[in-house]
Amino acid sequence: MMEPGLFITFEGTEGVGKSTQIQVAARALEDAGVPVRVTREPGGTPMAEAIRELLLSPRDEPVHETTELLLMFAARAQHLETLIRPTLARGEWVLCDRFTDATFAYQGGGRGVAESRIAQLETLVQGEFRPDHVVLLDAPVDIGMARARHRGELDRFEQEKLDFFQRIRQCYRDRAGRDPGRYNLVDATRPLAEVSGEVSGLMQALAASSRR
Amino acid sequence: MMEPGLFITFEGTEGVGKSTQIQVAARALEDAGVPVRVTREPGGTPMAEAIRELLLSPRDEPVHETTELLLMFAARAQHLETLIRPTLARGEWVLCDRFTDATFAYQGGGRGVAESRIAQLETLVQGEFRPDHVVLLDAPVDIGMARARHRGELDRFEQEKLDFFQRIRQCYRDRAGRDPGRYNLVDATRPLAEVSGEVSGLMQALAASSRR
Repeated sequence: MMEPGLFITFEGTEGVGKSTQIQVAARALEDAGVPVRVTREPGGTPMAEAIRELLLSPRDEPVHETTELLLMFAARAQHLETLIRPTLARGEWVLCDRFTDATFAYQGGGRGVAESRIAQLETLVQGEFRPDHVVLLDAPVDIGMARARHRGELDRFEQEKLDFFQRIRQCYRDRAGRDPGRYNLVDATRPLAEVSGEVSGLMQALAASSRR
Repeated sequence: MMEPGLFITFEGTEGVGKSTQIQVAARALEDAGVPVRVTREPGGTPMAEAIRELLLSPRDEPVHETTELLLMFAARAQHLETLIRPTLARGEWVLCDRFTDATFAYQGGGRGVAESRIAQLETLVQGEFRPDHVVLLDAPVDIGMARARHRGELDRFEQEKLDFFQRIRQCYRDRAGRDPGRYNLVDATRPLAEVSGEVSGLMQALAASSRR
């Protein structure tokens, strides 16, 4: 019986370097001889990507928050059952750009959807399945917004966005704080080489402990 | 404060005459001076119709049953919040071709999805909202399958379909039996004029009692 792979997710607000660090992590694991599959949410399979299109394409009709939440979990169910679970079962590791933590952070923390509604769908879709490790790339929202600031005063919309992303960051940090064994909070304000070094080190440690 | 409209759904297996009877009902209500809006599920708004497209368009990737269930309820959430609730609030009546009973019958009775999972999503999306009346057009599945029979023996696939639709019909009948005040079981095996007469009569009675 093959040892199942680990499921590792990468989370964080806009501009913290998720895409870069997921590639750094994949390389570190490959160098350690671990077979890796990189994927993303929402999406990851043609059907889930079609749902992503529906979610992200602009339209005249406002999308109700419950519709958005259900579409998000519909894409997740498809991704989980069609790609993630079968890949892990073959012994490959899966690195995923965002997962359910992002739903709690963006729809919950950001938009104010009740956490209990999200938790109910999490159980309905995932059962007991959760990421083995979550790499949370953390930086003050101001840093991502720095460019906007340099252009001048924040207007009302940009100010709203700032508050929105601050709630998202706080939600991520709260979740990480409640389960420090499973979440790795990575300070993403440091120079890129340092952040990459920490992420590589984490992956090497996971690869080493999985061989024990 | 305007009296909200009634929400009336039309249910039944393939070939029982839902489309015809929903038009008959709309005419009876209009004749009684009731403003009526006819709609359908899945669909009813551009966004919900786009979700319907996703559900119904054939694709190589098998759609997982949880994905299908969540897409169905995502379309329903959008339809309910964008069209059904606002229309009822304006005092118009809404006649809907299929609603959540169809999810219980097709996904639950037909495909074997646990009733509790469907009920959980029903509450998440609808809260306490339920149809005021359900017109269930009922006929033995054989009648819809008669053409297939006349062509010769049912093959394995057609036999499976027969069992599938029999489970759906049974589920509809069970639901109607548990709540006879809200469900109107209409025998759809009778001549069209008789069925239409009964449906018109039901609508006239509802229009009359709503004026009291």
